[in-house]
Amino acid sequence: MASALKSIKNLAPLLDRVLVQRVKAEAKTAGGIFLPESAVKELNEAKVLAVGPGGLDKDGKRTPMSVTAGDRVLIPQYGGSPIKIGEDEYSLFRDAELLAKINE
Amino acid sequence: MASALKSIKNLAPLLDRVLVQRVKAEAKTAGGIFLPESAVKELNEAKVLAVGPGGLDKDGKRTPMSVTAGDRVLIPQYGGSPIKIGEDEYSLFRDAELLAKINE
Amino acid sequence: MASALKSIKNLAPLLDRVLVQRVKAEAKTAGGIFLPESAVKELNEAKVLAVGPGGLDKDGKRTPMSVTAGDRVLIPQYGGSPIKIGEDEYSLFRDAELLAKINE
Amino acid sequence: MASALKSIKNLAPLLDRVLVQRVKAEAKTAGGIFLPESAVKELNEAKVLAVGPGGLDKDGKRTPMSVTAGDRVLIPQYGGSPIKIGEDEYSLFRDAELLAKINE
Amino acid sequence: MASALKSIKNLAPLLDRVLVQRVKAEAKTAGGIFLPESAVKELNEAKVLAVGPGGLDKDGKRTPMSVTAGDRVLIPQYGGSPIKIGEDEYSLFRDAELLAKINE
Amino acid sequence: MASALKSIKNLAPLLDRVLVQRVKAEAKTAGGIFLPESAVKELNEAKVLAVGPGGLDKDGKRTPMSVTAGDRVLIPQYGGSPIKIGEDEYSLFRDAELLAKINE
Amino acid sequence: MASALKSIKNLAPLLDRVLVQRVKAEAKTAGGIFLPESAVKELNEAKVLAVGPGGLDKDGKRTPMSVTAGDRVLIPQYGGSPIKIGEDEYSLFRDAELLAKINE
Repeated sequence: MASALKSIKNLAPLLDRVLVQRVKAEAKTAGGIFLPESAVKELNEAKVLAVGPGGLDKDGKRTPMSVTAGDRVLIPQYGGSPIKIGEDEYSLFRDAELLAKINE
Repeated sequence: MASALKSIKNLAPLLDRVLVQRVKAEAKTAGGIFLPESAVKELNEAKVLAVGPGGLDKDGKRTPMSVTAGDRVLIPQYGGSPIKIGEDEYSLFRDAELLAKINE
Repeated sequence: MASALKSIKNLAPLLDRVLVQRVKAEAKTAGGIFLPESAVKELNEAKVLAVGPGGLDKDGKRTPMSVTAGDRVLIPQYGGSPIKIGEDEYSLFRDAELLAKINE
Repeated sequence: MASALKSIKNLAPLLDRVLVQRVKAEAKTAGGIFLPESAVKELNEAKVLAVGPGGLDKDGKRTPMSVTAGDRVLIPQYGGSPIKIGEDEYSLFRDAELLAKINE
Repeated sequence: MASALKSIKNLAPLLDRVLVQRVKAEAKTAGGIFLPESAVKELNEAKVLAVGPGGLDKDGKRTPMSVTAGDRVLIPQYGGSPIKIGEDEYSLFRDAELLAKINE
Repeated sequence: MASALKSIKNLAPLLDRVLVQRVKAEAKTAGGIFLPESAVKELNEAKVLAVGPGGLDKDGKRTPMSVTAGDRVLIPQYGGSPIKIGEDEYSLFRDAELLAKINE
Repeated sequence: MASALKSIKNLAPLLDRVLVQRVKAEAKTAGGIFLPESAVKELNEAKVLAVGPGGLDKDGKRTPMSVTAGDRVLIPQYGGSPIKIGEDEYSLFRDAELLAKINE
């Protein structure tokens, strides 16, 4: 049974889950100097790639999601379920775990 | 009293449980070289074999399941109840523990 | 005060409890050779002997049970309340703890 | 202020509590031989002496009790509140903690 | 700011709390011999001195209390909030923590 | 950004919180002798300085508070959020944490 | 993927979250003497910069927030999610975690 997960685009989060990709800090200083990888600290900022249909409340209705695909969000420092496809890393969070939306 | 569990097909998950079989990583490289078993890392991808009728909400109604038999899903790294029939291994998860559906 | 529990048949589980007897692995190989007891691993399969009337929901109505006496079920590896009558061992599980029903 | 608790008959369990007395294993073998006390293992069987009026559900109505005075019941191995009057020992359990009723 | 708590009679328990005074075992044997204090074991019996107006249920209504001032009750071995006025010790329990009422 | 908290009178507790000031034991004996500070034990008695508007129940209505400003109350030995303004110490408790009201 | 978070003004808290900036104690004495940084103790006072739309109650309605942008509040000593933009530090709290509002 081979993996069916060819691309992150095939992933549809279930219930109130949100698929995000963490924003990597620039590996280049403002002056254009490239930094060694160890100097690049991960940010708690992420891009929303896909959102689930919403959790089910006690009456069987979907709870609205707080974000939509394309949104930039602040994610908590710890938690989330890690996903790895090839070299790329992604995370799944519950909608209520997302801290804030970043308006651009 | 002999075991009645002859085949995984006889297993009907109860309530909101989902019976899945984890996808094993290919033991062969793209170039056709077979890899030793220790080099084959398990994926968090699984195939849904059977789903329960749904949990009961406070009014006694069944909560709809998020997946159906045949679906490919992303399962959490830890958790689930392991089942072994002969050499084959399966797992049972609660519907709400499944992370995402993989669209093929 | 002498024990009133003469037979497992006298035991009526309360609320949502299910009385089961674990299926012991056959102490004989397919070829008819008897195995020493230490080689016989316990299975997570059990036979339902009796079921309670169902738990009470918040409106005082009984929640339906998922299984009935005679069913074969998959039970979790740990948990349940052990009961011993003479040499025979039984267990009591809550209905929602049972993992799956085995269709024969 | 002297104790008002002269007899176990004066004890009225509150809410959903059940007053029970554990059944002691017979200190005599079937053949009539008396056993030393250390050989008499306690059973998880008990006699119901009194039951409370039932807990209060969210609408202020009493939740029905599962057992009545005189019932024989199976109690969990651990838990319950111990009560000692003179040399006699009793226990108080919540109704939902009782495992099963023993039909005589 | 001096203490306003001159007497235990001024204490009005809030919500579903019950003010009790533990019954001390008699420091005298049946034959009239006074016992040294270390031989006097505390009982889990208490006298109800005052009861709160009842907790608030989800509709804002008071939940009825199980006991009234003057009742003798069985209290759990541990727990409760200790209060000391001069040399006298009292305890506050939640109504649902009280085990049983002692009918005199 | 300088502190806006000039006086304890400016503090308005949120939701079901209660602002109290603990009563200090008198540093003087009944006979008028001043005691060294280490001999003055703190009491679990406090004065209510301000109360919040009440918590929100599931229908969005405010839950009534059990006490009002000026009340003397018994507070639990541990817990509460400490506040310090200059040399003065205050505490914030949830309404349901207060044990009893002291009627003067 | 570069950070989209250029300014704290772009941050919109989700659900019942409140974005605050802690008030730093003045690094100058009343007499105008500058204090070394280690002598400046952090206060539990903060300024509200932005508030979320409110959490969702069980009927899908927004729970009202207790504070608005510009309010001065008392925050708990521990907890909250830290955010750092350049040299500036901020925190996100749930509305119900805020202790009190400071009226100016």
